[in-house]
Amino acid sequence: MSTRIHARYLIETPYPVEHAAQVMAGEQSSGTFTRLANETDALREAHGAVVENIETLEAVEAPSLPMRADLAPQGHALFQRALVELSWPLENMGPSLPNLVSTVAGNLFELKEFSALKLLDIDLPSAFADAYPGPQFGMSGTRQLTGITSGPLLGTIIKPSVGLSPAETADMVTQLVAGGIDFIKDDELQANGPHNPLRARVDAIMPIINAHAERTGKKVMYAFNISGDIDEMRAQHDYVVAAGGTCVMVAVNSIGLAGVAHLRRHSQVALHGHRAGWGMLSRSPHLGMAFDAYHKLWRLAGVDHIHVNGLRNKFSEEDASVINSARACQTAMFEAPAAGYQIMPVFSSGQSAAQVADTYQALGNSDLIYCCGGGIMAHPGGIAGGVASLRQAWQAAMANIPLATYAREHRELAQAMETFSV
Amino acid sequence: MSTRIHARYLIETPYPVEHAAQVMAGEQSSGTFTRLANETDALREAHGAVVENIETLEAVEAPSLPMRADLAPQGHALFQRALVELSWPLENMGPSLPNLVSTVAGNLFELKEFSALKLLDIDLPSAFADAYPGPQFGMSGTRQLTGITSGPLLGTIIKPSVGLSPAETADMVTQLVAGGIDFIKDDELQANGPHNPLRARVDAIMPIINAHAERTGKKVMYAFNISGDIDEMRAQHDYVVAAGGTCVMVAVNSIGLAGVAHLRRHSQVALHGHRAGWGMLSRSPHLGMAFDAYHKLWRLAGVDHIHVNGLRNKFSEEDASVINSARACQTAMFEAPAAGYQIMPVFSSGQSAAQVADTYQALGNSDLIYCCGGGIMAHPGGIAGGVASLRQAWQAAMANIPLATYAREHRELAQAMETFSV
Repeated sequence: MSTRIHARYLIETPYPVEHAAQVMAGEQSSGTFTRLANETDALREAHGAVVENIETLEAVEAPSLPMRADLAPQGHALFQRALVELSWPLENMGPSLPNLVSTVAGNLFELKEFSALKLLDIDLPSAFADAYPGPQFGMSGTRQLTGITSGPLLGTIIKPSVGLSPAETADMVTQLVAGGIDFIKDDELQANGPHNPLRARVDAIMPIINAHAERTGKKVMYAFNISGDIDEMRAQHDYVVAAGGTCVMVAVNSIGLAGVAHLRRHSQVALHGHRAGWGMLSRSPHLGMAFDAYHKLWRLAGVDHIHVNGLRNKFSEEDASVINSARACQTAMFEAPAAGYQIMPVFSSGQSAAQVADTYQALGNSDLIYCCGGGIMAHPGGIAGGVASLRQAWQAAMANIPLATYAREHRELAQAMETFSV
Repeated sequence: MSTRIHARYLIETPYPVEHAAQVMAGEQSSGTFTRLANETDALREAHGAVVENIETLEAVEAPSLPMRADLAPQGHALFQRALVELSWPLENMGPSLPNLVSTVAGNLFELKEFSALKLLDIDLPSAFADAYPGPQFGMSGTRQLTGITSGPLLGTIIKPSVGLSPAETADMVTQLVAGGIDFIKDDELQANGPHNPLRARVDAIMPIINAHAERTGKKVMYAFNISGDIDEMRAQHDYVVAAGGTCVMVAVNSIGLAGVAHLRRHSQVALHGHRAGWGMLSRSPHLGMAFDAYHKLWRLAGVDHIHVNGLRNKFSEEDASVINSARACQTAMFEAPAAGYQIMPVFSSGQSAAQVADTYQALGNSDLIYCCGGGIMAHPGGIAGGVASLRQAWQAAMANIPLATYAREHRELAQAMETFSV
């Protein structure tokens, strides 16, 4: 079993690639590229990062990120792209999530040698699984909490994003649970503002969900956005649990790794991870962090769900990237016998019955949360019609029946196909 | 007194700028650009973000960030750059740091309308100062803790970055305190790894610092890197305090806002903020977050020091940007009567006596920590010579005496000028 941490990067540099890779390795381990007196052979051997592999890619004429004027190469230079894999001994930082990040995604982004540097993926020894319990519910636990044993959890987000009162939110929840929804979430902008405090929202919503559960046996999962300071989140989590809630949501980038990992150890319910701010890390092909690396940090910290956008979303993400992200969430993170830390991808952003067949075909399973806003609210049959149309679309997709065929005997699906140009 | 939050952005878009700005405002407040049935006029009035100002800049031929293939503009399109200012009512999220971030730096980076989007600055109502105590020591408190009443704190980083044992680290500390240093810090890669556990390091180092303080009256500040999980950081902080330490360091991006704010409320010593990973947010001119916005978040969370690189550093940051960052740290964050939340900028990365005069001239004061590695270690007079040369260089700069003149009667400075090509 390996005790080394591996990380893969896309780099671009006007320097020889081997040199640039050694600079990365030096900066992020035993020190500077120039050897110090007390940097003994034994120390380098035990603690130096190793350049495991270099795969040269294309060269480009112009740097992808600006380089410092006084350091820019003189005369005509090409900027060489490459894939570089580094490894570190676990000994350097121990199985610590924050210190892992300082190592694999720390100062190196600032190094003058690079005109592009993006962390693509990480591979961690199982000591991290021993140190971090990871998702408490994950895919199977979320199914148990909701009683949805097959097909996706059909969900929605309370809209307008921010500004509704607790009573207005509860009115929507009444309609949604009556309409057959499985999952509801607060918007990431609706946390604990004075016009809609979290506790008042819990007080207004949970009686509706609990009464519906008593009547029908179906407990709708509501992801209460408890994002906030540490003590506040713990107290709000406890309040949600005491009221019978089964899920809390956190905006993971806004909270940070230490906060989310702390909440996980305290939590008794599913942790819904919202990735607001993710665009800052992802939108440049030449800087930041790819989802393959990013989401592993949050799985380790312990989220049970994480957002992946959706096909033909309203954002800038390409469909292939969405599917890659969803698949990554479902792939084991550690080799057996350590747990796989699989989590549920959350499809969201401009989703309706229109994307269901393509989503199922591309992903090959329905172990996901499928969130629609307009795709439910704007359905001619109202909320119940919208939810029914989505359920029908997934039934058709999973049975490999063309939507048009299935729609002949399923009115709500037929209506959705007209409304959402499926 | 304003109760609105203001944020300024650089944007680039192929759409009309006014439309794109409205999309940002809508996405980050009451909802989608398309109006929902329950998005009443009253709700929009009370909770909608407002486009306060648009300043049109140049247009460019190619998008700075890739746009989705199916959404890219047809035919010839220009990509218009602009500065946009938005404002939000505090009512939307209350004075909550994580929820502020979800609002001003959340989903908007992913919006399909933009080929560049960078958060430049934020301006917060004083309710945030009421909610967050901010830096506990700041500039003046750090001077009190160290007894350095004028001039910069002269500091260094233990190197090699990672791999030394506690005893080897303590050996360096012995030499450094004997050499007259004011401030020492762990590297951000040296936290609590099994080869150099934090507590063993404290045990080895603090007796040296305490004995020196008893002998000389000067308490050298050692920033112990306690970055880790929440409970671990609290316990390690307590351990440092019990041993007589006066500072703990955290890699702020690796911990996250909620964790740092939590530690601040618990802390009795100075919080040294390391910004490892900052390059991910800063290196693209077209994406991420400028230091003006970024560092305010950490000041509110409560760091007393934050890194700003230094002139002619080994990274990719330009000198003008370094000085702008340092000045920002020293500028009041709230209007009186709220506190100013000033913190000490930490100059580091390739620094020696060579950059002192330019640093002082550009910044106009010496309220900073000036960290040198090779600039101390590689001095011909050893550590004591290196520290003396830096002290002399700052004395000369602050007295407006040319270095060459001052060096005639200050041997260590003369040696530094030869060694570091001042």
